[in-house]
Amino acid sequence: MPYFEDMKVGDIREFGAYTFTAENIIRFAKKYDPQPFHLSEEGGENSLFGGLCASGWHTGAACMRMIVDFNKQQIQEAIARGEKPIASGPSPGFKNLKWLKPVYAGDTITYTSELVELRESATRPQWGIMFAKIYGVNQKGERVYEFDSSAFMPRKPK
Amino acid sequence: MPYFEDMKVGDIREFGAYTFTAENIIRFAKKYDPQPFHLSEEGGENSLFGGLCASGWHTGAACMRMIVDFNKQQIQEAIARGEKPIASGPSPGFKNLKWLKPVYAGDTITYTSELVELRESATRPQWGIMFAKIYGVNQKGERVYEFDSSAFMPRKPK
Repeated sequence: MPYFEDMKVGDIREFGAYTFTAENIIRFAKKYDPQPFHLSEEGGENSLFGGLCASGWHTGAACMRMIVDFNKQQIQEAIARGEKPIASGPSPGFKNLKWLKPVYAGDTITYTSELVELRESATRPQWGIMFAKIYGVNQKGERVYEFDSSAFMPRKPK
Repeated sequence: MPYFEDMKVGDIREFGAYTFTAENIIRFAKKYDPQPFHLSEEGGENSLFGGLCASGWHTGAACMRMIVDFNKQQIQEAIARGEKPIASGPSPGFKNLKWLKPVYAGDTITYTSELVELRESATRPQWGIMFAKIYGVNQKGERVYEFDSSAFMPRKPK
């Protein structure tokens, strides 16, 4: 990850893509969201979704996995370049999570971050705050998922 | 679930309690959030959390499970009373999710809903909108998790 000073509004980071299968949708749902439209094709067909679709929490957890994998790769690349890797602070939460469309078995969702605002921290001069829209788009180009994230990012040592 | 007309601001529903174990924390994290403090006790001790703690998405997914189980029980009880069960519509998302404190291995989180506002739907007269604060409290009485939920609730047939 870059330092706060090297970021700019509009920066796009594509984290990666996750394919939802009947198997991983049902496995997640059995543990965490056992509603009929998440548990079988038949249950999905008999619901207003019209087919087996993923728990919204599965959509969110898969996004987290893509972010973690992306960050690990960034850290490895920084180490390979002989740089000290830069990590953001832990997340305190987020705002405005929206499940915009169903995610069906067979869909591949690409998760992306768009930087929307940078703010200096009044109380912690060694940190800046990055606001980003995180979203997921399916293979048809439809946005299915989004939320507003904020994270503390380290500032360049002076 | 009651009809919209039978709800009132301040209504509390306790969904249930979920115990986070080293085993279920690590199992979730391996799939969806493989960061060191979610993957082993040692990784947690060497982090700012000071111990193995659950992915925030695990805290959220466990809350969903408690809500689904609670709703199923409500439906069964309604059927047992000879009533037609009432179900809310699917969730379009939520606002202001906060991970307020870490959830450690061994913690039991009780998830609860408090009704904060009721609003008639201008466009859909057969539905009302219920706004609730959903939160999770650990065995020490500390609130660790919360978000603002909204759901469409059916109105009483006239």
